[in-house]
Amino acid sequence: MKIGILGATGAVGRQMLECIEERNIPADEIRVFASERSKGMKLPFKGQELTVDVADAENLKGLDYVLGAVSNAMSKYYRPLIVEAGAVYIDNSSAFRLDDDVPLVVPQINGEDALKHNGIIANPNCSTIITMMALAPIAAISPIKTLTATTFQAVSGAGIGGFRELEEQVNQVMNNEPVTPSVFPAQIAFNCIAEIGSYNDNGYTTEEMKMQNEGRKILHLPDLKVTCTCVRVPVYRSHSISAAFETEEYISVEDAEKAISAFEGDRLVKDHVPTPLDTSNQDLVYVGRVRRDLTRDNALSLWCCGDQIRKGAASNAVEIMEYLEKH
Amino acid sequence: MKIGILGATGAVGRQMLECIEERNIPADEIRVFASERSKGMKLPFKGQELTVDVADAENLKGLDYVLGAVSNAMSKYYRPLIVEAGAVYIDNSSAFRLDDDVPLVVPQINGEDALKHNGIIANPNCSTIITMMALAPIAAISPIKTLTATTFQAVSGAGIGGFRELEEQVNQVMNNEPVTPSVFPAQIAFNCIAEIGSYNDNGYTTEEMKMQNEGRKILHLPDLKVTCTCVRVPVYRSHSISAAFETEEYISVEDAEKAISAFEGDRLVKDHVPTPLDTSNQDLVYVGRVRRDLTRDNALSLWCCGDQIRKGAASNAVEIMEYLEKH
Repeated sequence: MKIGILGATGAVGRQMLECIEERNIPADEIRVFASERSKGMKLPFKGQELTVDVADAENLKGLDYVLGAVSNAMSKYYRPLIVEAGAVYIDNSSAFRLDDDVPLVVPQINGEDALKHNGIIANPNCSTIITMMALAPIAAISPIKTLTATTFQAVSGAGIGGFRELEEQVNQVMNNEPVTPSVFPAQIAFNCIAEIGSYNDNGYTTEEMKMQNEGRKILHLPDLKVTCTCVRVPVYRSHSISAAFETEEYISVEDAEKAISAFEGDRLVKDHVPTPLDTSNQDLVYVGRVRRDLTRDNALSLWCCGDQIRKGAASNAVEIMEYLEKH
Repeated sequence: MKIGILGATGAVGRQMLECIEERNIPADEIRVFASERSKGMKLPFKGQELTVDVADAENLKGLDYVLGAVSNAMSKYYRPLIVEAGAVYIDNSSAFRLDDDVPLVVPQINGEDALKHNGIIANPNCSTIITMMALAPIAAISPIKTLTATTFQAVSGAGIGGFRELEEQVNQVMNNEPVTPSVFPAQIAFNCIAEIGSYNDNGYTTEEMKMQNEGRKILHLPDLKVTCTCVRVPVYRSHSISAAFETEEYISVEDAEKAISAFEGDRLVKDHVPTPLDTSNQDLVYVGRVRRDLTRDNALSLWCCGDQIRKGAASNAVEIMEYLEKH
């Protein structure tokens, strides 16, 4: 089993490498790729060092899987080269997620979709993965009709630059120095910014529409209606989501909780409210505060948290690879 | 005009004093009250100093208004003394907000209710004031039937102790020191905590139910249904709310925006997304991201921010007093 990682020096790429090591994936070879300016950089792996190279038709040859953590533009550029090389491409970008012939997969929810791939499988949006992990066990009891979601998204969603910007701005505020936003559209330290992505004509951002468009595809619910507000918060790694949703049939809080408890990859938390700090640096999605939605019948409300870099990105991609190997 | 401030040394009490100075309220005398341990403390006012005393039947005499920023227990203790002294009590606690004979007032929305007081007027919950300021101009076009709200609440909601805890924890995290929460139920630095108040049997917190119960009374909509999730975020002063709501009749985004623009105390923000930092240290509620709710007809979604200590508490109380003086 030979694995390539595209964008290996970024936050998600590094996490992919860590996940492969942690899960003891039997890889005979790992090749790490990034842009020209990272060429020659060393990345630690199982006590050794891997040397970063720039991917091309030549050095992609012989790989079984390529895990991608690069921009949409880069993903579009590399896709034909990866397919040509005969590897399966597991892509974290949003470039192909809604394409009919590209499965969009969260292994615990719709792993079987991955088996129908044509050389490429898309890894969903981070907030969408975490929210769908919380909703999928409930949707399995009765289909979800509508979802009203508000996200609390960590700065890690903007990569290593997002981390640095929060850390730097916190220092600046504490020292009474001026703050100049660069990664985010406003100061993120001690602030919340309800704008992630660019605006569509309907007033929703690209990030907000992913919850509906990708949610429909993952849950196999083409008529699911979603109103989403995506908000960046001064948290480092984990995303949280406040979700209120209607199901076709009535589901009791007890039955919803039972389904969440039994769902692989979820942890139902009842003894305290789960926080994004609780879920950082691990793979489970924590779900809490399950209660009836007070505005309508057959509706529930919940709060969930998950590590954006892990289950929201890198771990999910590695899990897709594991699923393919197993089946 | 003689004014007393109960709880004058706390975050809200100090802000009340500042608001009175800023607005140049023609006060002949201001008496500042707090607990025994603050007795003798000096508070700045118009270049002079006011000396803190403990309120009693004697020193409440002769006051026209008492603005209260104390606990429910203290408010219950002082109410009869204030009424006895012949002053109008404007109470920021939640002790009497839902009592039938106590008006619950946001002057721009239901100021006329204040005129029917029996010696006491209640100041609503902070998140509720800010949300209702955004919704009231829309409810005036067509009644609101349901509201799904998720709040992003600043640490100031927990008083000066909340401020200190965030500041201290940020320093501890930056210095890799252990963090021990005391004011909040979990670490608030670089975290979000979806638990404010204590739990009711229905799984909602006391804070969350205020949005429905107080919202109904302020908007004069006894059938309004609200599902609310209240979340503490690492922000110092201003609260933000993500709100999706249904109205009886269809309202276009343009008409909703026009109504918000024209509403005294609101600022419609279209050139950028309003953030809690934008609204800190001033009295306007900023409203942005007005768009159609995609889950149902006759529904809209918006994002609003307001200074919790000012419009969410102190300024609103001072505005109630101004309204009474004017009418």
